[in-house]
Amino acid sequence: MTLSYSLMRNIIPPKRGFETTEFIARTTKAQTLMAQKGLSALLFCTEAEVRYYSGFHTPFWQSPTRPWFLIIPAQGKPVAVIPQIGAACMELTWVEDIRTWPAPNPQDDGVTLLIETLCEVAGIKGKIGLPMGHETHVRMPATDFEQFRSQIGIERFVDATGIVRAQRMVKSEAEIQKIAHICNIASDTFEAVPEFISTGDTEQEAFRKMRVELLQRGADEVPYLVGGSGTGGYGDVIKPPSSRILKNGDMMMLDTGAVFDGYFCDFDRNYAFGSATNEMRRAYDVVYAMTEAGIAAAVVGATTTDLYHAMVKVMVQNGASVGDVGRLGHGLGMQLTEWPSHTASDATPLEAGMVLTIEPGMSYGNGFTMLHEENIVVREGGAELLSRRAPDELAVIV
Amino acid sequence: MTLSYSLMRNIIPPKRGFETTEFIARTTKAQTLMAQKGLSALLFCTEAEVRYYSGFHTPFWQSPTRPWFLIIPAQGKPVAVIPQIGAACMELTWVEDIRTWPAPNPQDDGVTLLIETLCEVAGIKGKIGLPMGHETHVRMPATDFEQFRSQIGIERFVDATGIVRAQRMVKSEAEIQKIAHICNIASDTFEAVPEFISTGDTEQEAFRKMRVELLQRGADEVPYLVGGSGTGGYGDVIKPPSSRILKNGDMMMLDTGAVFDGYFCDFDRNYAFGSATNEMRRAYDVVYAMTEAGIAAAVVGATTTDLYHAMVKVMVQNGASVGDVGRLGHGLGMQLTEWPSHTASDATPLEAGMVLTIEPGMSYGNGFTMLHEENIVVREGGAELLSRRAPDELAVIV
Repeated sequence: MTLSYSLMRNIIPPKRGFETTEFIARTTKAQTLMAQKGLSALLFCTEAEVRYYSGFHTPFWQSPTRPWFLIIPAQGKPVAVIPQIGAACMELTWVEDIRTWPAPNPQDDGVTLLIETLCEVAGIKGKIGLPMGHETHVRMPATDFEQFRSQIGIERFVDATGIVRAQRMVKSEAEIQKIAHICNIASDTFEAVPEFISTGDTEQEAFRKMRVELLQRGADEVPYLVGGSGTGGYGDVIKPPSSRILKNGDMMMLDTGAVFDGYFCDFDRNYAFGSATNEMRRAYDVVYAMTEAGIAAAVVGATTTDLYHAMVKVMVQNGASVGDVGRLGHGLGMQLTEWPSHTASDATPLEAGMVLTIEPGMSYGNGFTMLHEENIVVREGGAELLSRRAPDELAVIV
Repeated sequence: MTLSYSLMRNIIPPKRGFETTEFIARTTKAQTLMAQKGLSALLFCTEAEVRYYSGFHTPFWQSPTRPWFLIIPAQGKPVAVIPQIGAACMELTWVEDIRTWPAPNPQDDGVTLLIETLCEVAGIKGKIGLPMGHETHVRMPATDFEQFRSQIGIERFVDATGIVRAQRMVKSEAEIQKIAHICNIASDTFEAVPEFISTGDTEQEAFRKMRVELLQRGADEVPYLVGGSGTGGYGDVIKPPSSRILKNGDMMMLDTGAVFDGYFCDFDRNYAFGSATNEMRRAYDVVYAMTEAGIAAAVVGATTTDLYHAMVKVMVQNGASVGDVGRLGHGLGMQLTEWPSHTASDATPLEAGMVLTIEPGMSYGNGFTMLHEENIVVREGGAELLSRRAPDELAVIV
């Protein structure tokens, strides 16, 4: 079989972190978009956005206790408004203006300091952009959010989802290298699955082995690992592992979001145990062909909706029906899932540098689901694979 | 040395999940508190709260794309309002009324369905409780939140942080068993550190080994692993590992939040390499004594502020100064950090069943920090250790 796409593979792990030039470029781009929208400041309070513009990288976000803020002024470097415990870590970044308060302080957890800083940066009338749209949330207590918004003036806040969405969807080469590296690690690990997972393992044991292998092969962490198994097929695709024992006649799917230097892969692989039924093979082949169609359609100038229809067309041609996943792929990067979504209405134009999952699924048999997933980067010449393409026939572990 | 506390240790891993009686008890308790506050419904949209009342357990929350909602009515079982992709996983729980929409749908991502369901559950005038206070956030787009609140009536929404805080702070025996189990796994792993981490390892290699050992000893995942190393001591306590190579004369701290069945441990250990300086030993001894004082003070009827002062008293007696961490411990459970906080003003009364960290830190030498941490459960007779007590002398890896 001749493949119509190339595989991006880097042998040497990419350097950790980013050059300061990258943060300058991101911030300058944001400031250009801010100027177009007449914004005097951008305010961020979620992990991905704070890290994207500052380089602040810590697992401490696991703790829901303390809010963290980053402000991008109309010109110059971002300003951090953060709990004192984060000062030393923030000082490692390119941010120079770091303002702290002793958190936690339920009576005033950064609210006064944030208001002061925002008024200084945005003036007394300037508009302030804040992501308030799809796939965003405000990571601070709702009562604090209301208080500081009303003190500053509710009318001064503008939804800035479009700015951060437009920026983060298109990855730099340095970002693509990190995603390619973790995709390569996960590809190696998936290919080795028949060496370390076998019948007799529980799902829990199989998942544990998968996590350990991913780490030993170079993943920094494995925040996401889901899947399922069952006789003849699997149903649910988002549940954690059970104590069910793998046996001959099973299908198993593993779907992982492993991380290198703060960037995710997100793809899955399917395995039959002992032997595969014709029904399994048939479903695998259909979804494999849908994936091929999705990859082929991922060209600059097409839209996410074109991707969607390219995959659905193959499904319909094969008499299959779509599952319940709601979309056939999405963006990928600092988060397991990012904008855009391949749906019938999303219609986001594809640009070079976008990193996407191609993730078709279908229902078959007695409530079974078949889910495939690959990771690609859109290039001027078409899609380049970041994950190594799944085998064109269902793998059987004997 | 005679210890004044006992260690809770279960040899057999506890059963996964909870009996339905536990969810009935949690929901009934919430409904009692709702009645006291005149609430007709509680609305939750964050992972811990949705899981606490429903048992819905999935790593899928890693994806920020889709909002998820759980509503507790004045009587009866919770009602789930969730994306279609989660239906099969929610059907595994005790929740029966599961309403879904095909997400993602940026034009109406559950908002209409949520409004319909809330109006049905709470009536056209009933008050709706939503956590909006300290350590909470609203996990949905701010514009969607504003829209559905104004459609339902902003005045109908009441901060319900107090209800969920009061409930979640006091753990059931089944919850305590899970935390004790992961504490036991982490204790074993920390004790084995000298067997698998040595000089010549980079911090990144040391952290990777630590993650693998935790998994191989039974942790389901390791969402949190921070620490630091340095000649004579470490400074920052929340950063991810660097490429720094461990060498004789170093101090290293590892702090982990590992997870078993959705429940965290959170404690650290300190190691010197080659030999320990008198300054290191002295700081270790002071913080060890602070920890002893904290554990001894953790009795029913005392407050988190009593805990704080008990630890600070030992620090002051030793002429040391507090670091920048902002508190000397916190609650622990489904999240790495939970209410309450051991601070000078928190003053939360301790109750039997509360699971807490005792986490004193101090500054010493040339910008160094010394951080200790243990996990305890408050019992009628005093604190019971969940983590195995750190050695009473600084461990030296030779």
